[in-house]
Order: sequence, then structure tokens, then C-alpha cells
Amino acid sequence: MLIKGTQFRTIWLHPDDENCVQLIDQRWLPHEVRIADIRTVDEMCTAIADMWVRGAPLIGAAAAWGMYLAACEVPASCARDFFFEEAYGKLLKTRPTAVNLKWALDEMLTAITGNDSIIESKWYARNRAKWIADDDVKVNTAIGEYGLSLLSAIAEKKSGEPVQILTHCNAGWLATVDRGTITAPIYLAAEKNIPIHVYVSETRPRNQGAQLTAWELGENNIPHTLIADNAAGYLMQQGKIDIVLVGTDRTSARGDVINKIGTYLKALAAHEHQVPFFVAAPSSSIDFTMKDAFTEAKIEERNADEVTYVQGRADGKIISVRISPESTTAINPAFDITPAKYVTGLITEKGICSASFEGLKKLFPEKFSF
Amino acid sequence: MLIKGTQFRTIWLHPDDENCVQLIDQRWLPHEVRIADIRTVDEMCTAIADMWVRGAPLIGAAAAWGMYLAACEVPASCARDFFFEEAYGKLLKTRPTAVNLKWALDEMLTAITGNDSIIESKWYARNRAKWIADDDVKVNTAIGEYGLSLLSAIAEKKSGEPVQILTHCNAGWLATVDRGTITAPIYLAAEKNIPIHVYVSETRPRNQGAQLTAWELGENNIPHTLIADNAAGYLMQQGKIDIVLVGTDRTSARGDVINKIGTYLKALAAHEHQVPFFVAAPSSSIDFTMKDAFTEAKIEERNADEVTYVQGRADGKIISVRISPESTTAINPAFDITPAKYVTGLITEKGICSASFEGLKKLFPEKFSF
Repeated sequence: MLIKGTQFRTIWLHPDDENCVQLIDQRWLPHEVRIADIRTVDEMCTAIADMWVRGAPLIGAAAAWGMYLAACEVPASCARDFFFEEAYGKLLKTRPTAVNLKWALDEMLTAITGNDSIIESKWYARNRAKWIADDDVKVNTAIGEYGLSLLSAIAEKKSGEPVQILTHCNAGWLATVDRGTITAPIYLAAEKNIPIHVYVSETRPRNQGAQLTAWELGENNIPHTLIADNAAGYLMQQGKIDIVLVGTDRTSARGDVINKIGTYLKALAAHEHQVPFFVAAPSSSIDFTMKDAFTEAKIEERNADEVTYVQGRADGKIISVRISPESTTAINPAFDITPAKYVTGLITEKGICSASFEGLKKLFPEKFSF
Repeated sequence: MLIKGTQFRTIWLHPDDENCVQLIDQRWLPHEVRIADIRTVDEMCTAIADMWVRGAPLIGAAAAWGMYLAACEVPASCARDFFFEEAYGKLLKTRPTAVNLKWALDEMLTAITGNDSIIESKWYARNRAKWIADDDVKVNTAIGEYGLSLLSAIAEKKSGEPVQILTHCNAGWLATVDRGTITAPIYLAAEKNIPIHVYVSETRPRNQGAQLTAWELGENNIPHTLIADNAAGYLMQQGKIDIVLVGTDRTSARGDVINKIGTYLKALAAHEHQVPFFVAAPSSSIDFTMKDAFTEAKIEERNADEVTYVQGRADGKIISVRISPESTTAINPAFDITPAKYVTGLITEKGICSASFEGLKKLFPEKFSF
């Protein structure tokens, strides 16, 4: 998508250096667009764990390119496949919740191991990482088409008034390689001149809504308004929201949706006010082996500093300010679980289905082992 | 309550200057404790409108002392009662939602007008303002006793484990003259060695939880943990909350609760997880003339900068940082309405009642004209 009028992806192979992966270091957005050069597995681990890149699909793509870098840096004297398995282990540990990470790493491990030479491993790894990145864009484009049908149907009833969309966190193009999951239908609607307006909830503690979603919508000329997370219920009380669109880090085989902390509160409010609540869920984010998210999911606990400090810009500088007393401790669960019963539907690259075992099995029969 | 071990109220008459009211300027908490000298009605209007003081009961007390200052500054040449009515009008306009403001101003107008001299007006105003402040403390103390019964009952079932309380915003002693509304039972429980722990939700956009509640609980040795507002649903999903305690800026005669934005989302989650949801509601915050909060309440829209900027401390200085892109616009509704059906009960100075016309009428028959 666009940054100051120029097309970008979030991650790509350096055009002049095949041992270097470049990515947008999202920690400085919206204040500065910084491009980082990543040359080693360890650097990619840092970029994922410290959220230079984030969003389940992009985490998957970044991990894939991380495995490619393993093939670039493996010493000739080393037991190759053992080195790759170590890289796999390190990358897998960077974030515990998103399922795309493991999916992408499994794909890469198959491609990179069992080859006759480093050159071959590198070649296969590069192709596979590129395929994973390109496939993400294809998947999001398909999600865009299916999601568009929902927005068009609402638009038809609103006789020219904009479709009012509420989002949470960032499941935009910055969370993927390009297009985004929930933003794919939004960008497509705008391209087709369907009037839309997005309420962006800021998404404390890390403010991905305020910092990333607001920024990418602005750069791509989508009308939007920022709100505190707390205002979501009020807006629905006022009848101001037509549809809620959120992403997912892991959705269980029964349609329970693990997503950024706070998603669940929005789902409860949407249910209360009969506002459709849709989740954009590429199949790479669906854990077809997970039967019960409530007992099986590992919810990441992140550093308390993300709650007690807020980053922003003052006097041209990017700084963090402490908002609470020095002695205050905080807890910081990064995700919550929205039960399938409060999800109107899942928008996948194969179509829209109910958030249920039956719904998912109809679209992805080959993925189920039970 | 205590600040660094010394007893304070939030507002008081200057001990050596009877034409000056002093108050804690809460805008700098938790980073600095600043005491402001207020000498005119206009200064008090600024202190209320710009939230040097906030919280429905304290707004009432501050407005009362503002009327007293009118009696201090009225020029001898002036039509006294007209001057007082002007002061009343200015103070009434400072914040639109809290009902205590009008209640306190009406009390003061009766006391201050119709007297034979400025000295008499000043004397009656001073007495009435002092009474309003002292009465607030009495009311909160009574709320503390009734609320304690709820906490004790939970404690009995937990065999030594702390009672886990979730709060929103600040309805602590800083929102009142002393003791607080929801904190009155909390402080009393601690004084009686009932084990308690408070989850403090930060309360974006102004972070009264992170900045005020966390600070006052810390200064008074109450165990507490800060969370992002978004984490409230997750904590209830995990069974970690025994009771939700919130304040109110205006409660209707039918028990609908207008309170800080985000209260409603917590009420929905509490309902979903069968967690008792209690509102500390001094009668001064109940609007016995308001039948339908949803059609009659005026919900204050505050400046969008409160959403796009966050204040905190960095390098020893208190500064505001911009969290969103420069071009992003925001909306900032300050309150939402929790329907009575999601309120387990109201804790008033006359006892605990259901959030309903019948419940309130039983405790306050004299207040109803219908």
C-alpha cells in the first residue's frame, strides 16, 4: 500500500544485497518511517520479539525470511540441517500466540533441510519465503473480495451514507505483507467508491490503532476517526457502528478467536447491540488442531512497561513517558479469546463461514484430522 | 487520606487567608503534588472545567467553595444577588454531566442570596460550603460501611485469599473531599485487615486510573495492579475478579448509571461472567428527576487532544506526547450509560438498593416527585 504516494510492502529482500532482508521498523510509526536491514536469524528474532514487525501474517512472513537468512549465514563447517533446526527453534520462541509463525516455519524447514548444498538450501529457502510473502498478498486480496460483499450489502441500505466500521488493533497492511486482512475489504471498497468511514480504537497498551491503523488509513486516504478503546460501547449504544471488523492471531477449529486484548469487550458490545462482528481469518491463522482455545491457548504476557509507559512524539522527538506512579506494578496480557458464539462470521480466503467446526470444515475439509 | 503519611483533604479553606480556597491540582499527579490557591469564581471555573479537580462529589464541593469566593470578591458597589447569580451561572457551565454540581450550587445560592449584607452572605456561604464538604465525607463514610458488607461477604468465602476488586476511573478520595465513594469500603476493609487487592483500569483517555487511583491506593498501602482497560474482559474470563466497583457522575431515577466512558463495557463483561457490578452512588449523584438517562442525559464531548496526546513523566519532566499521526482526528465522549439491568446494586449513604425506581424510592421516598 501507499506511504507518501509510493507503493510499499512491509518486508522484502534487499534489491542489491541478497543476504539482507529489509522491513519497515514499525516501532517508530506514525512519527518516522524507518527501514531496517536484517542480516541474521538473531536480528530477525529481535525484530519479531520486540515488535519491529507484528501482526500474525507478517510475523509468519518475517519468520520465513529469517529462515532464509539462516541459509545465508550458515558456516560451511557447520552441520547444516542442525543449524537450520536451531534457527527454527529460536524463531519459534519469539512470540507464543500467533499460529502463522509455526506454520511459516514448518513450511521453511521442509524447504531448507535435506538439500545437497548450501546453495541449494538458500535457493529453496528464498523461493519458499517469497512464496509465503506473495501468498499472503493473494490470500488478503481474496479476503478483500469476500469482505467487500459485506460492506456493499450495508452500503446498499444506507443510501449514500458511509458504512461505519469499527476496528481494533492493526490488522491492516502493516500486519501483513500487503493489503491487510481487515483492511483488504476497506481498501477495496474505497477503490470501488463505496462510501466508508472507520472508527479506529487506539488499542492500549501498545496503541497499534492510534499509531499504525490511523497512519496507514491516512496514507491511503480512508476517512477515519480515532477513539479511546473505552468509547466502543458508547458508539454502539448510539447506533453509530454498522459492522465490527477485527483480525485474529489464532482461531481455533471451533471458531473461538484469539486476538489483541480488548477484542472480547468489543464482541460483547456488538452482540448486545446486534452489530455484526466479523473476523478476517486467513487459513494460516486458523489452528485446525486446536479444539478448545480456552484450555489450549497460550496467552502471551508482555512486559508491564507497555502499560506503565506510553510512546509518542514531543518537540520532534520520539519519547516514552511514564503515566503511572513509579512504584505501580502492572500486568499485560496481550490477547483475549472471543467465544465463537459472539462471532458473526469468519472471512477467509476461501469465503465467509460461521465461526464453528461445521463452518470451517465446509471451507477447509482437507485441514481437519478430526 | 494520606499523602506521604500526612492526612489531606482534596479541598479546604486556606488556614491563614479566608479569601482563598486551596485544592490539590490533580493535573500533575502522580508525578507532583501541587497545591493551588484559588481566589476568584473565574479561577474556580477554570479549576473545574480544566480538571484540576474532577469527580462528581469533588466538583460539587469545589463549586460550593467557588460560590463562597463570589461572596469574598463581590464589589461593595455591585447588586449582590445578581453577582451571585452570575457566579452560579458560570460555575454551572463548567461541566455538563455531573449532577452534584447543580445540587451544590442550588444549596449555595439559597444560602448566599437574600441576606442583608456582604458579611452575612459570606458567613452563610462559608458555613454552607463547609457543610457540603463535611457532608460529603460523612456520606462516603456511610457508603464505606455499607460497601464493606459486600467485601466482607466475599472475603468469608475466600478463606484468606484477597478479595479481587476491579475499578474504573477514579472514584477514590481524590474524586471527593475525602475517603472516596468506591474507595471508602476499600480503605475500611484494609483498616479492618480484610485481605483485598484492586485491579486498577487505567481509564483512557485521561488515565485517571493509572494516574490517580493507582497513586492514592499506593499512598494508602492498598495492594493493587494496573491494567489496560482492554484487559478487563480477559481477567473476568480467567475468573480473577470477585466484584466490580465503580462510581457515577449521574444516576437516573430508574438506576441507569452515567459514568466515565468504558464503564459500560466492564458492566457487559461483568454480566457475562456473573461478577457482581456495584455502583457507589451518593444521593447527591442521583438525579431523581431524570426518568430516562438515554434520552435526557447530556454526554460531555471533550477535546480530541485528550485522545491524541498522553501526559506522563520523562527525564523528571511532565510532558505530553502525541501518540497518533498529526493529521488524525479523534472524538472524545467522556461518559457512557450503563443500563440499570446490568447494575447489581447501588451503594448509597442510606444503604444498598437495586438499581431501579423501586429500589431508590425505598431509600429516598422524599426525593421523588413522581
